[in-house]
Amino acid sequence: MFMHMVKAAVAGASGYAGGELLRLLLGHPEVEIGALTAGSSAGRRLGDLHPYLTPLADRVVEDTTVEALAGHDVVFLALPHGHSAALAAQLPDSVTVIDCGADFRLRDEAAWTTYYDTPYAGAWAYGLPELPVGGGRQREALQGTRHIAVPGCYPTAVSLALAPGFASGLLDPQDVVVVAASGTSGAGKSLKPHLLGAEVMGAMSPYGVGGTHRHTPEIEQNLTAAAGPGGTAVQVSFTPTLAPMPRGILATCTARLGETAKEADTHAIREAWVKAYADEPFVHLLPEGQWPSTASVLGSNSVHVQVTVDERTRRVVAVAAVDNLTKGTAGAAVQCLNLALGLPETTGLPVAGVAP
Amino acid sequence: MFMHMVKAAVAGASGYAGGELLRLLLGHPEVEIGALTAGSSAGRRLGDLHPYLTPLADRVVEDTTVEALAGHDVVFLALPHGHSAALAAQLPDSVTVIDCGADFRLRDEAAWTTYYDTPYAGAWAYGLPELPVGGGRQREALQGTRHIAVPGCYPTAVSLALAPGFASGLLDPQDVVVVAASGTSGAGKSLKPHLLGAEVMGAMSPYGVGGTHRHTPEIEQNLTAAAGPGGTAVQVSFTPTLAPMPRGILATCTARLGETAKEADTHAIREAWVKAYADEPFVHLLPEGQWPSTASVLGSNSVHVQVTVDERTRRVVAVAAVDNLTKGTAGAAVQCLNLALGLPETTGLPVAGVAP
Amino acid sequence: MFMHMVKAAVAGASGYAGGELLRLLLGHPEVEIGALTAGSSAGRRLGDLHPYLTPLADRVVEDTTVEALAGHDVVFLALPHGHSAALAAQLPDSVTVIDCGADFRLRDEAAWTTYYDTPYAGAWAYGLPELPVGGGRQREALQGTRHIAVPGCYPTAVSLALAPGFASGLLDPQDVVVVAASGTSGAGKSLKPHLLGAEVMGAMSPYGVGGTHRHTPEIEQNLTAAAGPGGTAVQVSFTPTLAPMPRGILATCTARLGETAKEADTHAIREAWVKAYADEPFVHLLPEGQWPSTASVLGSNSVHVQVTVDERTRRVVAVAAVDNLTKGTAGAAVQCLNLALGLPETTGLPVAGVAP
Amino acid sequence: MFMHMVKAAVAGASGYAGGELLRLLLGHPEVEIGALTAGSSAGRRLGDLHPYLTPLADRVVEDTTVEALAGHDVVFLALPHGHSAALAAQLPDSVTVIDCGADFRLRDEAAWTTYYDTPYAGAWAYGLPELPVGGGRQREALQGTRHIAVPGCYPTAVSLALAPGFASGLLDPQDVVVVAASGTSGAGKSLKPHLLGAEVMGAMSPYGVGGTHRHTPEIEQNLTAAAGPGGTAVQVSFTPTLAPMPRGILATCTARLGETAKEADTHAIREAWVKAYADEPFVHLLPEGQWPSTASVLGSNSVHVQVTVDERTRRVVAVAAVDNLTKGTAGAAVQCLNLALGLPETTGLPVAGVAP
Repeated sequence: MFMHMVKAAVAGASGYAGGELLRLLLGHPEVEIGALTAGSSAGRRLGDLHPYLTPLADRVVEDTTVEALAGHDVVFLALPHGHSAALAAQLPDSVTVIDCGADFRLRDEAAWTTYYDTPYAGAWAYGLPELPVGGGRQREALQGTRHIAVPGCYPTAVSLALAPGFASGLLDPQDVVVVAASGTSGAGKSLKPHLLGAEVMGAMSPYGVGGTHRHTPEIEQNLTAAAGPGGTAVQVSFTPTLAPMPRGILATCTARLGETAKEADTHAIREAWVKAYADEPFVHLLPEGQWPSTASVLGSNSVHVQVTVDERTRRVVAVAAVDNLTKGTAGAAVQCLNLALGLPETTGLPVAGVAP
Repeated sequence: MFMHMVKAAVAGASGYAGGELLRLLLGHPEVEIGALTAGSSAGRRLGDLHPYLTPLADRVVEDTTVEALAGHDVVFLALPHGHSAALAAQLPDSVTVIDCGADFRLRDEAAWTTYYDTPYAGAWAYGLPELPVGGGRQREALQGTRHIAVPGCYPTAVSLALAPGFASGLLDPQDVVVVAASGTSGAGKSLKPHLLGAEVMGAMSPYGVGGTHRHTPEIEQNLTAAAGPGGTAVQVSFTPTLAPMPRGILATCTARLGETAKEADTHAIREAWVKAYADEPFVHLLPEGQWPSTASVLGSNSVHVQVTVDERTRRVVAVAAVDNLTKGTAGAAVQCLNLALGLPETTGLPVAGVAP
Repeated sequence: MFMHMVKAAVAGASGYAGGELLRLLLGHPEVEIGALTAGSSAGRRLGDLHPYLTPLADRVVEDTTVEALAGHDVVFLALPHGHSAALAAQLPDSVTVIDCGADFRLRDEAAWTTYYDTPYAGAWAYGLPELPVGGGRQREALQGTRHIAVPGCYPTAVSLALAPGFASGLLDPQDVVVVAASGTSGAGKSLKPHLLGAEVMGAMSPYGVGGTHRHTPEIEQNLTAAAGPGGTAVQVSFTPTLAPMPRGILATCTARLGETAKEADTHAIREAWVKAYADEPFVHLLPEGQWPSTASVLGSNSVHVQVTVDERTRRVVAVAAVDNLTKGTAGAAVQCLNLALGLPETTGLPVAGVAP
Repeated sequence: MFMHMVKAAVAGASGYAGGELLRLLLGHPEVEIGALTAGSSAGRRLGDLHPYLTPLADRVVEDTTVEALAGHDVVFLALPHGHSAALAAQLPDSVTVIDCGADFRLRDEAAWTTYYDTPYAGAWAYGLPELPVGGGRQREALQGTRHIAVPGCYPTAVSLALAPGFASGLLDPQDVVVVAASGTSGAGKSLKPHLLGAEVMGAMSPYGVGGTHRHTPEIEQNLTAAAGPGGTAVQVSFTPTLAPMPRGILATCTARLGETAKEADTHAIREAWVKAYADEPFVHLLPEGQWPSTASVLGSNSVHVQVTVDERTRRVVAVAAVDNLTKGTAGAAVQCLNLALGLPETTGLPVAGVAP
């Protein structure tokens, strides 16, 4: 399709997102893996950092510098938040830059300032192609783009679970409650006692309770966009929890049915989800009665979704499962790469999960 | 304390609840373990069924019959629902009967009929001593009682998380959302493919979505009781999920603050929980900033609770962690036994969890 | 490469091996997935049986009959042992048949009769391409073959760990001890209490102790073949254990150095492994000091190997990690398919694992 | 039994061994918990360090100094190796000191120097009461003692698995192979990437391969002691592996039958184990056909043992399961305390495990 392979560098190759990017790029038929860079891990063999990346075991990680990243068609940034803006500013305009971090996700500077401790850097095209926005899809904003902000893992799961309900005006924007469980790779490779294996196994616990998690404004931004212009901003009570598994997010999302949906039954409600995802290659609305499981999407770019109505409380319950490192991060980044370069959107992305 | 040891039989000794009862009774200084009975496992060594019950390994399980259960001071029932009533009716009035099943938990026949497929059997004293009811505690209804219904595992966690808010009139009874995660022992020893280890590990998934789980009316019964007479019945959107761990429940509960709490800040709200549990030996409100983890209560009768207010959405988020088999079932049963017999309530019950 | 896609049927599609085969075949560029058959699961949606196989969710499983399997270029058999022979006999000679079961693995009828309870069916070409045999590799016996017996999962790991030592005459054939740990998918989708998630998590336990596991003669057959004609038959003390993980085998293999190796140091010994695997695309001898982990090969067809010498006891310790369902079963089957059809051996097979 | 409660201090209260000691001491009827000390964690609430120790949550950890440890009847040391000797030297002679570290375990200075990097400190009474030594038991050396070295976790499991075979002269001291799997708490609370939950789950991997693990000489010391004076020193090929579980050790031990056992069948061999453990309260030889599982001993001081003979290879296979933190460390320490003080040996020690 291209005259030459697309040459891609990964800045932040030593972390979990960087590792998953490399795993996926190894299977991408149009991409050649170029420079791998990192901070404190520079100089180490990749095989020491990510022993599962067998084909790249002897590659050595370089320092993250503009020089190391020069000469690539695409640069993936998988850095801690606050580091992407400065680096991106030094890359040539011709380079496609795909940021897996938070730096360019929020369009509202006030929201950024409330939740993050670094200066606001602006907003790039938001990399959730399936999100319904203004009668179309977010996909349109990504085709041929040069700068893309990959969504957070929780926002991906929650937004895809609930967006059809807001896009079709069925849900009350003021009564949305989300409780999501994440595998511990979501916390990154941080050396903290509560992330040690012995502490994690057997442990479910919440964190960032009370609306303090940084993904809260991103979720609200997406659902408000899905609801369309002129509506009330969506406000979400969001509680993340840490679950004893390496990967995966299960987002259990519930919202009260709005005034216009008062007469709707489950079947009518579900129809909004059926229509929203009928043509989406990565979003699978399960058959009625089957519910998503994180195990079913492991290592894949698929999102499994199901929805029902609790007739007693007049609430919709919508559940989505994603792999936080694949569709939740690196898979989305590759999907965005495909859109940016005009490749078929599904190129190089597994749809089947690795199970059991 | 007693002239003789209390002789206790366990009907349903082959299941997980039965096994946990036996583990706790082995450490109870006033109890002598008598007959162990079961259905299809009758005739087998207990060491084959529960290899962890080392001191009882050579005991043989008998058929569950009135004859086998005769001659005991206490009979614990750990049977599938629908089996307790017939058996209990045949036991002498002098016997203390503690039912770990659902049969006698609901006071509302209509609720029973909606959620269960066996005839309504009535209601026994409800075994959640810490529940605030009508200015006192449920404990009072249990002292010296002969027939006790042990609460369900989810209702225990959810009720203790939210009850102080309803008892103090702070919460809106019409906007309560609970998402709870349970270890897979909560599903019992059922031979179903989705409960196999290879399928469970790495898997978070919901079930009983849309208010269909049988613990829903029990949760509502408890919170309505906590709210006190004359109030609106509490209605709960309840979604249980299965988590990749053997034991433990983490209940993430959120409710909108009611009209009377409009001005209250987190500190004032939290005070209701502080007061509610100041004297409770098994309920521990964690220091501000620390959140419950299922790992911390493993094998113990403790409940860890924390609460905060999400100022943006004006919702209380209250979280409780219990071990579903201990405080969630067998520990509660022993606690009820202590109350029924007039023993100190904490006799034989571990407060520290087994961790890491 | 082919004029048409290779049409492949999977008999036994409902089990774990069948599911993994389908996952791999979905990513194989030359294969079209044809009939999916099973026994008691016939008539069910594949999405109910293997919810992770998203692209095949709506396929319906048929009864395993010769008619259903007709019209395919390749038939994969993933059946309980004892069922392959009868079925294979009814398939046309032109069909390539790849058996993931045990039926055709053993060349010694007496060994079969000792370990299995069904009649001996003979031996097919043994599907472990990397095994050194008689100065060459087992690969040669597989190229263009029509009937292939895929190795057992333990024999794959153990044979590849130890074969270079026997091929180079360094090891004592009479003093070999292997202890291997397997994820619980190795036990299949059997509904047995000890395989329930609640029992598996936290549990390491041995089974088939004392040389009774059916993979014992297969391991010995392979290592004896590696040692070459005229040598003493290799005898192995083999103890398998069940580990609390869904997938993966870690084989810890130790053998006393033979007379000829008495003076050899670790470096010299290791050289035999270096040479054996220098050109093998799926076998990776790790750098000195790095040891295999099952997590690093999850979902991949890679084998990670390391070896050292315990100078005190003059024993070699060689360790291999494989994914029991991929290189241990379905990946090997696809690798054999590639060899049988003359495709590049690595076609459609992932080399990088899914981690963390 | 005592005029007053035994006052016990724990130095190193912040680690996993210290935490488990406190859990057990909370249930010990004769012990009052005194000072809790630590290094870098001094000044912190115990509830932050070990949230499962609910009854001690508000205790504050002090600096490990002689002053802090003064005034106690018993001091438990749970320190990194190399720290116990200096501290112990400063404690009054009247204090019972029980060291959970390695400092005083080895009687052979040369072995110490080979495996450890700190000066040799000598040997204390070795705290494995059940070990057969010189016609009696190690227990006798512990009764009324003031200084006790608690065994390592692996040596406990391996020694109890194999000792009866050496004590009865059945096993070849030159052909012993042990592969043991440990839960990750065995690695302590070390902040290393490979111990993070996301990396541990799904991962089995060996470490300390080739006889380099520090428990190797301790295992050999114990088995040589069991074999009795005048025999050949026992030499062991020992490979530890890390398993994806928080706690537990499964030791799979195999040894060739010696010349004297050439005619013995399994039944005769097994008799040595039956006799060795008939009167041991914590060592349970399972019925023939049942094999130990780490899950069955979780949180208990029990050791589950089984043994058989592989007739083909003439090797004994003996397997033991222990909880590395309980019988493997803190439970053993309490058992030694009981012996040192003349209390019943089982006081305060659970025999039943916490399962499922």
